[in-house]
Amino acid sequence: MSRIAFLECAVCGNRVSAEEPQTVCPVDAGSLMVRYDLEALKQTAKRENVAALGATPGRSVGMWRYADVMPDVDPVTLGEGFTPMLQSQRYDGLVVKEEAANPTGTFKARGMAAAVSMAKHYGLKHLAAPSAGNAAGALAAYAAAAGITAHIFMPKDVPFANILEAKAYGADLTLVDGLISDCGRMVAERIAEQKKLAAAGEMPANEVWFEVSTMKEPFRVEGKKTMGYELVEQLGWKYPDAVMYPTGGGVGLIGMWKAFEEMEALGWVSGKRPKMYSLQAAGCAPLAKAFGEGKTRSEFFAGAETMASGLRVPKPYADWMVLEIVRESGGEVIAVDDKAIFDSVGDWGRNEGLLLCPEGAAATASYDKLLAEGKLTASDRVVLFNTGAGLKYVDTIAEAWGIRREVVLPKALPVGGIITPV
Amino acid sequence: MSRIAFLECAVCGNRVSAEEPQTVCPVDAGSLMVRYDLEALKQTAKRENVAALGATPGRSVGMWRYADVMPDVDPVTLGEGFTPMLQSQRYDGLVVKEEAANPTGTFKARGMAAAVSMAKHYGLKHLAAPSAGNAAGALAAYAAAAGITAHIFMPKDVPFANILEAKAYGADLTLVDGLISDCGRMVAERIAEQKKLAAAGEMPANEVWFEVSTMKEPFRVEGKKTMGYELVEQLGWKYPDAVMYPTGGGVGLIGMWKAFEEMEALGWVSGKRPKMYSLQAAGCAPLAKAFGEGKTRSEFFAGAETMASGLRVPKPYADWMVLEIVRESGGEVIAVDDKAIFDSVGDWGRNEGLLLCPEGAAATASYDKLLAEGKLTASDRVVLFNTGAGLKYVDTIAEAWGIRREVVLPKALPVGGIITPV
Repeated sequence: MSRIAFLECAVCGNRVSAEEPQTVCPVDAGSLMVRYDLEALKQTAKRENVAALGATPGRSVGMWRYADVMPDVDPVTLGEGFTPMLQSQRYDGLVVKEEAANPTGTFKARGMAAAVSMAKHYGLKHLAAPSAGNAAGALAAYAAAAGITAHIFMPKDVPFANILEAKAYGADLTLVDGLISDCGRMVAERIAEQKKLAAAGEMPANEVWFEVSTMKEPFRVEGKKTMGYELVEQLGWKYPDAVMYPTGGGVGLIGMWKAFEEMEALGWVSGKRPKMYSLQAAGCAPLAKAFGEGKTRSEFFAGAETMASGLRVPKPYADWMVLEIVRESGGEVIAVDDKAIFDSVGDWGRNEGLLLCPEGAAATASYDKLLAEGKLTASDRVVLFNTGAGLKYVDTIAEAWGIRREVVLPKALPVGGIITPV
Repeated sequence: MSRIAFLECAVCGNRVSAEEPQTVCPVDAGSLMVRYDLEALKQTAKRENVAALGATPGRSVGMWRYADVMPDVDPVTLGEGFTPMLQSQRYDGLVVKEEAANPTGTFKARGMAAAVSMAKHYGLKHLAAPSAGNAAGALAAYAAAAGITAHIFMPKDVPFANILEAKAYGADLTLVDGLISDCGRMVAERIAEQKKLAAAGEMPANEVWFEVSTMKEPFRVEGKKTMGYELVEQLGWKYPDAVMYPTGGGVGLIGMWKAFEEMEALGWVSGKRPKMYSLQAAGCAPLAKAFGEGKTRSEFFAGAETMASGLRVPKPYADWMVLEIVRESGGEVIAVDDKAIFDSVGDWGRNEGLLLCPEGAAATASYDKLLAEGKLTASDRVVLFNTGAGLKYVDTIAEAWGIRREVVLPKALPVGGIITPV
């Protein structure tokens, strides 16, 4: 891991070593960011090599093509990253980063691939995290590949696909009658209990769970930041005018901004950074509320309710970082309601051939809103993230559209066979 | 399309032009194969350029990196192909081609991307196909992207994900109380009727459906063949010892063999071709039966029943081609039962971090069988295809494993929150 200089607290700047597992800053519990010696790296890390690395026969093309700015450990990989950038059929300037192409069908694979690779490097045996659904599937998959036990807490009303995949990957799964915030509290309580037991010699220290919650360990950001490297590389090492990103915990947005800083320091890109648009669901919009009120932190969003389960995060741990980045970039935090979200899922299915996840559709619905308000034009270069596969939300989408699962009884038709029009 | 020399009937060798839409051979209804002037191409088409093309900034990496040996039309693309090749965690020689990374979550995207790109080039407005499920989703998605109407017939008991995606992409969907063979017959009957009406001037000719059924139009094979190009490129332009391929209609296996022929003619690869293992479900194993009986054609498999819906093809149209290739390669056609299939889904989830589709698990279960019989060793270089995302089979897998969808009633626990152990 020679490449990593130190871990730095995003709040107080305190520095800690990456030679051993770290969660948050020991001083003020701020999120720890991975810092490299970019001045030294600038001499050796060339963007030309990235494409060459990605094209090396025998490798799968993926996020590890950016190895120069990642921890140098053996990656636990399932083929994550370097997802397609798709040209919209209708809007000249709009391209979609199709994160459904990732393992477990969502962008969560990037962060968990990095976090689990580090956990394996550190020799950790038990990883724990709360999840709104998709992080659970990703953690469970990479933990299975690494021979590590995943302990997962998620709301019991997540899409069934999230429950089945966690089970399929052999995770220790707990369904919670509450929100991800309740899950997070319970993970923290479990670990606090275990640490007491371990301190009292009543439990082996290496059986204490290690928490990989959003922004509470340094490496999920390192995985997610590759979205920023990719979008710049796929645009020919140029910045777009805007990035539209569905925001639950905000790790991806924080990671992309970090990627832009690093790429500028390395001389890989220059010019004006994109406006960062953070998209939420009206039923759970703590960041949109704080942004509108000009606040630097969000408040717990009471009564959070949206069918876009990935956006059901009532109090993001690093809310202040997201708000700061959005404001610095000249972007906005926008909230759209579930009707607009599921209408947009249908619109993009019929007209673009993409089955978006509800979170991705929060971005497309917001894009429509910004076009209507004249804040964006169809020719502006916009990178919009579809953060996951609509296929993980089959029941949710069917429910939102009022599609009955029962097949209508067959009736005879003039031309052979018994058929059922739908 | 200057690159294409002609279309050749796989049965009688009859040649027809690719300048206009073609289905099957006008002489004997044999499948038409796309032939290029490989001698001429050999001078210009270099394998080195392939990687360079794939690595070009601004392009998504995908199957169109093999443009030199594809029709030169504007592709209708959703980011299909160049899927990850994953090293097994347990078997040194085994790598998995993870086709779940494709648009619509399965390998069907490759064939439909090529077929729909050609349909758009020809100016066709209506495409029709029977489907065991996943071809329908792929056809519907690419048709939506191309502004073409897709008319789809599939068994009413396909996974719900297949029904929802077809609807989401705006397809004209008909659910049939029967098998894909019934669906195929109905598509043929519809089109025959339409042609009569068109001939009688009672229907506009351009509203007659064009059939893109398996092996009944030339370009789905061209899309699927890229799996053969990719596996050779990803192994450093070398052949593996064996390829394991779940077989419904067999287009991919036929396509890969075609790719090997083309690559040898172009000087891109040489040496002994891999043994081709064709994998089926015991509940619908027409090819395994014919192979075992030393026959050159299969018989309609009566009472076909398996939860691996993609393998529910009782009489593949090009059965003789699959059998010929498997025999020529020194491979086998193997059938495994549904219990072995869903046990293997669990095994690969827990131990490899991959949620296989049932069809892919027919391949992994067969791999175990060949290891046990000593016909393969763990160090043999084997490329195994997971043809799609297990996420498209959530209900099927849950049913096979006896997982109840209802969440168990919450009970209080000592440490905060109401939780539900699963």
